[in-house]
Amino acid sequence: MQPLVDAVVRRLVHLLSSADDRAPPVSDGASPERIEAAFEAAGVPLPLRPDEPAHAPEALDAAVGAVLAHSVRTLHPRFFNQNFAGPDAVAVLGDWLGAALNTTAATYEAAPVGTLMERAVCARLAALAGWDAHDGLFLAGGSLSNLHAMHLARHRVAPDAVQRGNPPGGLAAFTSAEAHYSVGKAMALMGLGRRALHVVPCDARGRMLPDALEAAIHDARRAGQRPFFVNATAGTTVLGAFDPLDALADICRYHDLWLHVDGCFGASALFSPRERHRMAGVERADSLAWNLHKMMGVTQQCSALLVRHPGLLRAAFAGGADYLFQPDKPHAALDSGDLTFQCARRVDALKAWLTWKAHGDAGFAARVEHAVDLAERTAARIEADARFVLAAPPSWVNVCFWWVPADLRPLDRAARGVDVRLHGLAPRIKARLLREGTAMLGHQPVQGGPNAWRLLFINPAVTDDDVTATLDAIDVAGRALPHPA
Amino acid sequence: MQPLVDAVVRRLVHLLSSADDRAPPVSDGASPERIEAAFEAAGVPLPLRPDEPAHAPEALDAAVGAVLAHSVRTLHPRFFNQNFAGPDAVAVLGDWLGAALNTTAATYEAAPVGTLMERAVCARLAALAGWDAHDGLFLAGGSLSNLHAMHLARHRVAPDAVQRGNPPGGLAAFTSAEAHYSVGKAMALMGLGRRALHVVPCDARGRMLPDALEAAIHDARRAGQRPFFVNATAGTTVLGAFDPLDALADICRYHDLWLHVDGCFGASALFSPRERHRMAGVERADSLAWNLHKMMGVTQQCSALLVRHPGLLRAAFAGGADYLFQPDKPHAALDSGDLTFQCARRVDALKAWLTWKAHGDAGFAARVEHAVDLAERTAARIEADARFVLAAPPSWVNVCFWWVPADLRPLDRAARGVDVRLHGLAPRIKARLLREGTAMLGHQPVQGGPNAWRLLFINPAVTDDDVTATLDAIDVAGRALPHPA
Repeated sequence: MQPLVDAVVRRLVHLLSSADDRAPPVSDGASPERIEAAFEAAGVPLPLRPDEPAHAPEALDAAVGAVLAHSVRTLHPRFFNQNFAGPDAVAVLGDWLGAALNTTAATYEAAPVGTLMERAVCARLAALAGWDAHDGLFLAGGSLSNLHAMHLARHRVAPDAVQRGNPPGGLAAFTSAEAHYSVGKAMALMGLGRRALHVVPCDARGRMLPDALEAAIHDARRAGQRPFFVNATAGTTVLGAFDPLDALADICRYHDLWLHVDGCFGASALFSPRERHRMAGVERADSLAWNLHKMMGVTQQCSALLVRHPGLLRAAFAGGADYLFQPDKPHAALDSGDLTFQCARRVDALKAWLTWKAHGDAGFAARVEHAVDLAERTAARIEADARFVLAAPPSWVNVCFWWVPADLRPLDRAARGVDVRLHGLAPRIKARLLREGTAMLGHQPVQGGPNAWRLLFINPAVTDDDVTATLDAIDVAGRALPHPA
Repeated sequence: MQPLVDAVVRRLVHLLSSADDRAPPVSDGASPERIEAAFEAAGVPLPLRPDEPAHAPEALDAAVGAVLAHSVRTLHPRFFNQNFAGPDAVAVLGDWLGAALNTTAATYEAAPVGTLMERAVCARLAALAGWDAHDGLFLAGGSLSNLHAMHLARHRVAPDAVQRGNPPGGLAAFTSAEAHYSVGKAMALMGLGRRALHVVPCDARGRMLPDALEAAIHDARRAGQRPFFVNATAGTTVLGAFDPLDALADICRYHDLWLHVDGCFGASALFSPRERHRMAGVERADSLAWNLHKMMGVTQQCSALLVRHPGLLRAAFAGGADYLFQPDKPHAALDSGDLTFQCARRVDALKAWLTWKAHGDAGFAARVEHAVDLAERTAARIEADARFVLAAPPSWVNVCFWWVPADLRPLDRAARGVDVRLHGLAPRIKARLLREGTAMLGHQPVQGGPNAWRLLFINPAVTDDDVTATLDAIDVAGRALPHPA
């Protein structure tokens, strides 16, 4: 397999070194049929058939070429489609290293270096959050981190739930209308039910209203439920909003509730002395989810869960498998497998550690500040551009806006049919952008309004020119629609 | 960063190409202090400190050298410690490709190729299981697959649990005494409680006793619980046992219960026409967890969950985030993100697809059969070797045995103090093996008895000579203990 290894490695090193190249399309928008044809042409058809043969290295290399040709270039400076972008080359290396080592972070014995790196990274993240005690570990994504936090919160109020199941009467949780949908999924999975999740209204910028939380807690109590968990969001998916953590911490202290901060997107503000004010109050949270694979360009997945109560993860999750976690093994106290629902885990801390060591605190701060600056400049120019209208004030690295067809300028959303037209425009323009590959960005309804475009600034290679090119691409695609668009 | 990329890639390619080299130690058994000293020496200390500087590429490369020096060589032919081993070089390449692409398998738009590959791999896995309809996806580990299956089973009997929480009265689940500990963890997480998990006794080879399952179901009913879920294990962690799936399927049909097969370890028997009889009955299961990162050498993690009821994953998990899953997008029907608790997922199917295409069905069958043959030969020679005693008949690729000190031969476990001595020996011998790095294998109590060694045959590079070397290393280490051991 050595020739295949060499050939594929050449392709991958080339991909990394051409990350800033704007010439290749961000995506080629290929249909399933076109992709299938490409693999046929490579000599390795996509389906796996009975008596599937072993394919030759040359064909496999051609298939890898087809993978690269038809995959989305998330490292392209005009990829704005997700709240990850611009994977850092060092993080990719760290990921490759972890994959080649192919071990599990569950025990020190199997992952001595990974275990120590996980502890080192989590310790520093916890310190940035202002905590003086913690447990921490990396999980396979922010949804799992939020789920773990909710399980801990339940364990706190109902320690016998692990053995006896949910307590009777119902436990109530609280999150904002702009929060990630994993909070509702966790309520369903944990057998608490989505109806026991109280969705708290937000202000116009997408921040949870503390008074509304207070009211929701009283409502839940009146309905006979026991409040146990508040999910605060630091960096909402659509608007980039930060819930007011200090005010929410006051409420949680008063009502004796677990405060979880879903900082998957926004906790990286803590890397920047200039931006960390957004997280004020996190030092009082009980748990914090923080994805380094979003703002920081570490590859998927790199999700830290931090808990300010050492020992609680073990108490709530320990399964006690005697073939795995043996107190008579050397350094067994460092084993992390009993701290999580997952058993085997990739050594995700390794790539985080390597990336952080490569860029240092100043490099991490610069990445965050570059993104925030670019978002603010972009919002300002959109405000000055008749073709566009901001759908919300900019926050964090998110800029949401509408492209307005010429006959609707200046935009009057109160006019009849306008919202319906705006809503329908975005998917049609996006289909064209995907085919052309000029830029890739998402759209979604903003606070009950019509589909708006969302630019997310994450990749440090993005320049103002990329923003110009992206805005122009939307305008060109919009004007190319059959009139009236 | 190009010099660092080049240097690290050279190290990684060398690692892959030296996979079969027996000269390097499997592990160096380093203490945390020694590992910390190694990173200090490389110029990149392990801790992350306030004002952490950016380290130079040369230092980072030296740090990667320290990672490699002190990590476990899971690709070494004498690594038997886990139920994964011998990562396939093509799988590593596929993993690297996925990491460099850094996208999420949640939507076709973000992962067009990965989405199609996931469908192709799952379709063929489902066909091997004898199913004519299915949904399938890759999750971050078998524990999550088992959790998803249990959630589906609950949804089947209590479709309003998603909204209203667990039904009153209690739901009862069933698994064997030898099953993976994630089943109990899932009961805890889902708010059903560990006490509602009925642990069914096994025969001497670790297989669930159907009559005992029948009795447990009646017990649960008498206690007022509603049975809903049976977890059958195909390839238990310690003994490699396969529960009798056909008999369990009969019981599940009669009692109208969901039959989940945790085939994380053993379902790969289906790749071998000679070994697939072990899975007879899986065609009647409702769901199947199948980890290609165990027997098949695909890198961690590569866990397929297959469900024989199309549409049920979506019904039970859909969160309906409108910024992500938009019906007006092209090919939205291919989006998988709403089929799982996870949101973003790595494109794990890619490496599975590439590995399968590289080896073909015959190569996959040969890998499985090589491992089974080696286990059977090893068990036979242990039976003929006075230094060792089998702790259980061999099954699948697992061989469990005791090393017997000379003064205890022939072994009489009924004699006073013998079990206690045997139990204490294994950790002491293992500590020495870890330091020497000759071989790495696990030990654990077998069916309530004392610690026994467990050889797991997975890596196709393992030879009979490796077995000889490993058995001799245990014997040498045992004899070196202070007398009497």
